Amino acid sequence: MLSKNRIKYINSLKIKKFRQLHQSFIVEGAKSVLELLDSDFEIEFVLTTQEFQQKYSTILTTHNTIAETVTLQELEGLGSFQTNDSCLAVAKTKQNEFLSPDKSEYVLVLDDVRDPGNLGTIIRVADWYGINKIICSNDTTDVYNPKVVAASKGSFTRVNLFYTNLESYLAENATGMNVIGAFLGGSSLYDFQFAKSGGYIVMGNESNGIGKAVEQFVTDKITIPRIGGAESLNVGIATAVMLDNLRRQLSV
Amino acid sequence: MLSKNRIKYINSLKIKKFRQLHQSFIVEGAKSVLELLDSDFEIEFVLTTQEFQQKYSTILTTHNTIAETVTLQELEGLGSFQTNDSCLAVAKTKQNEFLSPDKSEYVLVLDDVRDPGNLGTIIRVADWYGINKIICSNDTTDVYNPKVVAASKGSFTRVNLFYTNLESYLAENATGMNVIGAFLGGSSLYDFQFAKSGGYIVMGNESNGIGKAVEQFVTDKITIPRIGGAESLNVGIATAVMLDNLRRQLSV
Repeated sequence: MLSKNRIKYINSLKIKKFRQLHQSFIVEGAKSVLELLDSDFEIEFVLTTQEFQQKYSTILTTHNTIAETVTLQELEGLGSFQTNDSCLAVAKTKQNEFLSPDKSEYVLVLDDVRDPGNLGTIIRVADWYGINKIICSNDTTDVYNPKVVAASKGSFTRVNLFYTNLESYLAENATGMNVIGAFLGGSSLYDFQFAKSGGYIVMGNESNGIGKAVEQFVTDKITIPRIGGAESLNVGIATAVMLDNLRRQLSV
Repeated sequence: MLSKNRIKYINSLKIKKFRQLHQSFIVEGAKSVLELLDSDFEIEFVLTTQEFQQKYSTILTTHNTIAETVTLQELEGLGSFQTNDSCLAVAKTKQNEFLSPDKSEYVLVLDDVRDPGNLGTIIRVADWYGINKIICSNDTTDVYNPKVVAASKGSFTRVNLFYTNLESYLAENATGMNVIGAFLGGSSLYDFQFAKSGGYIVMGNESNGIGKAVEQFVTDKITIPRIGGAESLNVGIATAVMLDNLRRQLSV
């Protein structure tokens, strides 16, 4: 039986202020919780149905996880979350640690991506294409937002995000480096050659694209060629297409 | 002042059964309604704020549109829709008409894509890459679902969908043609050469991929190469990457 305090605590973690206060966040659904158990995140506790607990008892024991058995009704009562099917975990957030590209590595830079679904999708796509560092503007949505975690489908455990003032960051860390920005009206992605030396790939805000403060550091303005009538592509889609072209070129 | 009957009518169109009964559907938000006005869809009526009506009076008059002025509160009361900012239109659905590829044309085939957001995204992506025919299994979500319309960002006006039994359809229309299917574990997309002769590009269900009944017609099983740890890509993302590779190759 879930205590009122625990219910209150979990509900508080849906709000950024309380996630920051407690340095904790929620992970929901079997797939995401299993990926969490398989990661180096510190887990506070897991709430599971009896079914899930029996099915994954070995994993739960191996990780020395505090698991409380709850009913499906109790789980459903906790969230507005679609993925909340058989378990929910609360884990400690990671420190916001400085990240920059290693030699010949490409990292992703996000300038004010606001939609949690988009950020989650971008994390999943980055993970697919082997990008594990994302530098985010301070206004980019919080990676520990439950909707971001859910949309990332477990990839939040493998991709690291660093939130910072992008203008200062790029001024200090991008001199002499490739800074490739996705713009409408830039050069064709199909004619562009990604350098083997690595660098930054910058994606902008859903409505306004890349802001002026960041644009000044962009060395290459690139556009995904359009054939038809749609005005724009969603930022998650555009990120996937950029990274796909990067990987295809560099895999040759 | 919105009549109770009109409110009831609009609310009924959120349900497929009533969309089919009335052969009508809802379009929300300034961008989508403007694209609708610019299309060949027959419009029943538009509800707009006074602001929108003044700003776009020429367009509304040119199209001889029946526009009722409503308050923002009335509009908000109508829907759970995020995009419902300044107007809402009701238009007549189109007949479910047979579609097949013209000479050297590629068309998209969707085998049970269930999520409205995914279908809307796929329509938008198809539109971007100049694909304007999509053949859908009967279980694919309804294109006139308000969430599909919203996610397509106006592209539903330029892309035609045909719902059918895919097994019968492909048996009758795919003989001797390229039927390229997105699978996990197929040949690398990067090594694949799209033929100039056109054909079908098949995308499968979110959880189960392409079903057996459709798989038997697939001539080329293609996989988007993965570098990192994510288990899969969202079907909207995968569609974009497939179409991007198609267009890049054929534009050379």
